[in-house]
Amino acid sequence: MSDKALFAPPGAAADLEEGSALTPKFDADGLVTCVATDARSGEVLMVAHMNAEALAKTIATGQAWYYSRSRATLWRKGETSGHSQRIVEMRIDCDQDAVLIKVEQTGGACHTGRRSCFYRAVPIGKAGAVTLEFRDERMFDPKVVYRGQE
Amino acid sequence: MSDKALFAPPGAAADLEEGSALTPKFDADGLVTCVATDARSGEVLMVAHMNAEALAKTIATGQAWYYSRSRATLWRKGETSGHSQRIVEMRIDCDQDAVLIKVEQTGGACHTGRRSCFYRAVPIGKAGAVTLEFRDERMFDPKVVYRGQE
Repeated sequence: MSDKALFAPPGAAADLEEGSALTPKFDADGLVTCVATDARSGEVLMVAHMNAEALAKTIATGQAWYYSRSRATLWRKGETSGHSQRIVEMRIDCDQDAVLIKVEQTGGACHTGRRSCFYRAVPIGKAGAVTLEFRDERMFDPKVVYRGQE
Repeated sequence: MSDKALFAPPGAAADLEEGSALTPKFDADGLVTCVATDARSGEVLMVAHMNAEALAKTIATGQAWYYSRSRATLWRKGETSGHSQRIVEMRIDCDQDAVLIKVEQTGGACHTGRRSCFYRAVPIGKAGAVTLEFRDERMFDPKVVYRGQE
């Protein structure tokens, strides 16, 4: 399945921004950024990437599919962990290079065992080395949940 | 100001994920992804990129600084439009390649005149060409607000 078969190529800025055609602007690696939020609380759960096939599968199935840069493979969120994401709503941004999905998250989104990947705060307005502050506890044991890797 | 002077280099996965040192994992272009949300409503406003200098300036000043890939310049959000972002909270994700900022947004975040860049919905579960659905109205006239470009 080639990328060209899945989505029309992006046009000029005016078409990208004010048009009603989905013409994603994939980067040099063929990816768009995807932000997943909890559909009920609005909490940002994770940031990942989708290639054309992952985006098309997500739209077609209503389940979140991503592309792993480190493993160079397409994956369905939750295929190892069971912690899948059902899409409640999808949005595309102005220049069509970022996707927002509001999801119903089963279990935790983060492979470290937390609900969200953003479990550490960065203090603002301090000079010098930055010490992160942990804000969220683990909700599952990743060693138990992941026999493979997600 | 070199990147190395600003942040220590990222270590192994265990350090990145469970450590309390901010050691951002910049990509091949020297960037991390940044998601900005409205600190009060939780709404996702925009996705952009930060290089080491933009991230360091954001942490030091409490105002959002980004790096524009298309213009290859550092910029402070609002420097042209007045639509600045005051950081209420910053978070870093598990593998330290994405930053979340919860902001007090003056005016609209999107250069098209909307509050959020994610003003169009992508229908889920439909086959064939996708028709986007506009969900948000303009809150300002970009032709008036931007004399230059942001």
